[in-house]
Amino acid sequence: MSLRIGVIGTGMIGQDHIRRITHVLPNCEVTAVTDVDRARAESAAAMTPNAAVYDAAAPLIAADNVDAVLIASWGPAHEEAILPALDAGKPIFCEKPLATTQDACLRIIDAEVATGRRLIQVGFMRRYDAAYKALKATVDSGEIGAPLLFHSVHRNASVPKGLYTSDMAVSDTMVHDIDVSRWLLDDEVARVRVTAAKPNSLGEDLRDPIFAVMEMRGGALATVEVSVNIGYGYDIRGEISAEKGAASLGESNPILVKTSEKFSGRVPADWRERFIAAYDAEIAEWVIAASKGGATGPSAWDGYAITAVSDAALKAANTGEAADVTLVDRPALYGN
Amino acid sequence: MSLRIGVIGTGMIGQDHIRRITHVLPNCEVTAVTDVDRARAESAAAMTPNAAVYDAAAPLIAADNVDAVLIASWGPAHEEAILPALDAGKPIFCEKPLATTQDACLRIIDAEVATGRRLIQVGFMRRYDAAYKALKATVDSGEIGAPLLFHSVHRNASVPKGLYTSDMAVSDTMVHDIDVSRWLLDDEVARVRVTAAKPNSLGEDLRDPIFAVMEMRGGALATVEVSVNIGYGYDIRGEISAEKGAASLGESNPILVKTSEKFSGRVPADWRERFIAAYDAEIAEWVIAASKGGATGPSAWDGYAITAVSDAALKAANTGEAADVTLVDRPALYGN
Amino acid sequence: MSLRIGVIGTGMIGQDHIRRITHVLPNCEVTAVTDVDRARAESAAAMTPNAAVYDAAAPLIAADNVDAVLIASWGPAHEEAILPALDAGKPIFCEKPLATTQDACLRIIDAEVATGRRLIQVGFMRRYDAAYKALKATVDSGEIGAPLLFHSVHRNASVPKGLYTSDMAVSDTMVHDIDVSRWLLDDEVARVRVTAAKPNSLGEDLRDPIFAVMEMRGGALATVEVSVNIGYGYDIRGEISAEKGAASLGESNPILVKTSEKFSGRVPADWRERFIAAYDAEIAEWVIAASKGGATGPSAWDGYAITAVSDAALKAANTGEAADVTLVDRPALYGN
Amino acid sequence: MSLRIGVIGTGMIGQDHIRRITHVLPNCEVTAVTDVDRARAESAAAMTPNAAVYDAAAPLIAADNVDAVLIASWGPAHEEAILPALDAGKPIFCEKPLATTQDACLRIIDAEVATGRRLIQVGFMRRYDAAYKALKATVDSGEIGAPLLFHSVHRNASVPKGLYTSDMAVSDTMVHDIDVSRWLLDDEVARVRVTAAKPNSLGEDLRDPIFAVMEMRGGALATVEVSVNIGYGYDIRGEISAEKGAASLGESNPILVKTSEKFSGRVPADWRERFIAAYDAEIAEWVIAASKGGATGPSAWDGYAITAVSDAALKAANTGEAADVTLVDRPALYGN
Ligand SMILES: [Mg+2]
Ligand SMILES: [Mg+2]
Ligand SMILES: [Mg+2]
Ligand SMILES: [Mg+2]
Repeated sequence: MSLRIGVIGTGMIGQDHIRRITHVLPNCEVTAVTDVDRARAESAAAMTPNAAVYDAAAPLIAADNVDAVLIASWGPAHEEAILPALDAGKPIFCEKPLATTQDACLRIIDAEVATGRRLIQVGFMRRYDAAYKALKATVDSGEIGAPLLFHSVHRNASVPKGLYTSDMAVSDTMVHDIDVSRWLLDDEVARVRVTAAKPNSLGEDLRDPIFAVMEMRGGALATVEVSVNIGYGYDIRGEISAEKGAASLGESNPILVKTSEKFSGRVPADWRERFIAAYDAEIAEWVIAASKGGATGPSAWDGYAITAVSDAALKAANTGEAADVTLVDRPALYGN
Repeated sequence: MSLRIGVIGTGMIGQDHIRRITHVLPNCEVTAVTDVDRARAESAAAMTPNAAVYDAAAPLIAADNVDAVLIASWGPAHEEAILPALDAGKPIFCEKPLATTQDACLRIIDAEVATGRRLIQVGFMRRYDAAYKALKATVDSGEIGAPLLFHSVHRNASVPKGLYTSDMAVSDTMVHDIDVSRWLLDDEVARVRVTAAKPNSLGEDLRDPIFAVMEMRGGALATVEVSVNIGYGYDIRGEISAEKGAASLGESNPILVKTSEKFSGRVPADWRERFIAAYDAEIAEWVIAASKGGATGPSAWDGYAITAVSDAALKAANTGEAADVTLVDRPALYGN
Repeated sequence: MSLRIGVIGTGMIGQDHIRRITHVLPNCEVTAVTDVDRARAESAAAMTPNAAVYDAAAPLIAADNVDAVLIASWGPAHEEAILPALDAGKPIFCEKPLATTQDACLRIIDAEVATGRRLIQVGFMRRYDAAYKALKATVDSGEIGAPLLFHSVHRNASVPKGLYTSDMAVSDTMVHDIDVSRWLLDDEVARVRVTAAKPNSLGEDLRDPIFAVMEMRGGALATVEVSVNIGYGYDIRGEISAEKGAASLGESNPILVKTSEKFSGRVPADWRERFIAAYDAEIAEWVIAASKGGATGPSAWDGYAITAVSDAALKAANTGEAADVTLVDRPALYGN
Repeated sequence: MSLRIGVIGTGMIGQDHIRRITHVLPNCEVTAVTDVDRARAESAAAMTPNAAVYDAAAPLIAADNVDAVLIASWGPAHEEAILPALDAGKPIFCEKPLATTQDACLRIIDAEVATGRRLIQVGFMRRYDAAYKALKATVDSGEIGAPLLFHSVHRNASVPKGLYTSDMAVSDTMVHDIDVSRWLLDDEVARVRVTAAKPNSLGEDLRDPIFAVMEMRGGALATVEVSVNIGYGYDIRGEISAEKGAASLGESNPILVKTSEKFSGRVPADWRERFIAAYDAEIAEWVIAASKGGATGPSAWDGYAITAVSDAALKAANTGEAADVTLVDRPALYGN
């Protein structure tokens, strides 16, 4: 009954998914794990009752007791895991990015299209957050009219010094805002500009904050503030401004405390606190779809389009000029 | 053109009204002041350009260049200032309480009724606060249906040790909640119970907080929390629960600040910060009415009824039993 | 591995738990069901893959493949299911009320104490709600000082005409507020008064709303508004007023929508929408404890104490007088 | 004692100031009015007790009983009123824009500098709004660290069809956002880009909404959404994102109403409702400064700099390219 899952990549994110599959979600279990670091794979296997350790992705994918594959290795390794899993016809959950180049994304798309059905869900989990879902539902209901502008704010308390580079503000961080912009506005990005502000001294020489203006094909705008060393917490804001109304994410405030001449509510410390329920819902949906042999949610096409926008945004950030986004034609498999 | 005002009582509140009349409001000026403390009257006179100092209320009231009288002396002295001002047919603003006994209130009512018109406005200034006015307008609009329950919360950061007594939590503090309960529910109080909680240790042996349940003649309830040593600020809350909706005072938050994993807004430090605009509006309305020779706003009847409820609440607090509120018939002068 | 659960009572609540156990929670399954209505038991069994249908509670409790028992039958039937389950040493989840009389509650307590360990969790699920948990954590942290007053507001859009009686506003509805008052203030109720307001005409002759003032043994107060025909939604509010601060449940507003000169957020339609995650968390905790052979969460003692307060509140509502609450000594099994 | 004010221009705004001076503010009166439309001047004069009607600005400015001049005529007429008033050494309040060309602004600046003291206050009234003042105070306090990005949202329910042109979204509407950006960030704009979104169909062929990105000299960014046909109300938002915190304008919600499964608060209908108190405070400050023979608040320099940014933004909007802003050196009269 239970979906038997093989996990490729058992770093922090992979382990969190193992925990989720084992202790949070019904009707699923981890039966196989692999990692480039064998010791890490073994300690991950110890977190769940029935997982065998494999030396590489290929035999794990081929294993009889692996019904579906969850890929949480680093980006450059995604393609080499996805392609054989598609060959094997096994449903795939792949953490973002789908792949690190547009070419790799397109090879994956070709392979999935060749199978004739959707098998891949990419890990853009904001679409599973209750607040974003309510925002999407409000736009789609027509209550506020046609959306004209989406403003997204993405703030991290801090990022690891020395490890996090200026380009990652786009390729690792802003990709989530690119995804929700496309999803909420139901359109592709045509052009993007990125302006850097005076750098936050707490981030040393990092290009932070940055501000992006994306022009969608249909003419709506999506604007994004990314601030990754703002100190006070993890703060994700978003507002749609439409023809006759507006809708925005609310403050998350389970309780209001009054002390010292202030009323106050908590800002989440990090993405884990803010989006834990969205991660659970994301994998829950995947387990249901994978149990039926398919995939729903963010697609390989989304993974490709986001990579294309991210590439353009990096170019725009480095040149100070607008950069166009050119996409191949969308295969019918991914809808119109 | 300017309404010429004589001010009786130049303590803290009296001086604040002199400042307001001189520097905030148009078409009014202070032409006379008096106080039991002559030196204090003189320094108050120096705050405004044209004020003569009088030795007593009587000659001030009689003065030709005094069109109207503002009474800010202590409660026991109100009656002896109001009665001659009524005799002189001069409009009166009287700080709360109207008088300290129901009998004195009734003598004032008789004297005002004898003049044939309203001349007195009593200083219950919450009715001039924008938020309370919006609450009243919402109830009166019928949008939420018939009101069934009003819950009022009255919190002070602290009260002066040694000077503020347990009875003052009713007679000085809760009187404002009694006023707005009567006004919002458009009804008189029939019965009241008061329960004291375990005392707040920061208030030493004060009976604080207390909780009152008032039954209105028409059957609605008004409940009041009074906490006078809560430390964090001056916090006035109120919510009407009605047949098909509810309406409550909002948080006063001009701005929201995010620091240290919190979003926060300011709670007012004291009544001055919370209600300064209401005091301005209160006196502005009085100046307009007094310039026409009359009075609007909270009436002598309100002053009497509030004193009657306050007396009953004190009895209830001291006995632990319910106390009935009995009022004389309302004179036609004060509406039906 | 999976906890094998027998469900007694397959009405609306029972079916919801079957859905939860089957589709939401890991490491648990329904293996047996029973109901006074055999047909209803059979259709409930069809909701889950492996459930046998039993004619009565006794054989279900005795079944080898039943590790733990979930009781969702009507209140008067709880005792006769709990006692044999205790005899069998099987962990029990019992929907509120624990039993409908204090005597029955005490017999259950005696039987559980005789087993030497906690086996019963009672279904007061608010303690599993994220907002209430944050409120409890704030009180327990000492951040706002000693709690002096808890004000609880419990509003239902409507209740079923003809089926919901005036007494149920206490015994079915206010019991949740009694539970959280005891839990947040960490104390027992000593005395209670209940005042009825003018009845909401939408509830016809129902005693609605009612307002309760509970005096805790330690002197804090807990006050409760229960309004069960307020129309606009299901609205659960709560605020602790403490020695140096206050803390309240926030509005649940995933998104804010602006249209037609208003900003607005959604009020939950009913308890399902408001507390669905709390129900999931409640049963998740029970599954974990039951898998280890025991119970945590609200205890049989809580079930008894709440019934005692509810009985006193009903008496108070019917007499208009204060009613004392007398409890037996608390057995050591339930902590000090 | 009263400041005797001559009003030039008695259209809608001029009349509102006459009302304010006559009925809201102390220590000031209107003694003279003029307008290109003599009949309109006469009806404006009838709104206040002591105003003479003049045929032109020059004699009004010269009149002995005019202490100070308030200019509310249309922009192209401002310079010809300001210069003689400066010559006469009379304090001036001038509605925005200071003048319609940078050259005219510079002539005014030269003339004011020649008088050796500040005599002009320009009507950028947001600086007098309580919420903007709190935002400015928070930035200046250092509580959130150095500001890096200010995001401003300026939404009108609608603008007059046929009268309001696309350029006015910058020159009439966005000028307020330019002013507060400069003021909050305490810096001048160096460069601006403007991107138009797909036009709101309710505004027909208007360029609406538009989005501007301004780069300040010191490197901070100011971004502005202008939407002038959004239907739901007048909505002014603003948030500073800084090195270690953020601060934003709060929702204006005197009361929260709950009906029909929503909690809701009011959005102001128009600028009058939102900023009426700011207009009062603005003129109150001007009256005090003018009574002392000088001026405080937004200066002729601000008027010039805002016109320069507005000119650049119009060019940017029309070309799609970034436009630089070049300013003359700031005279010492206007601070460093
Ligand atoms: Mg699982
Ligand atoms: Mg005055
Ligand atoms: Mg399960
Ligand atoms: Mg005036």
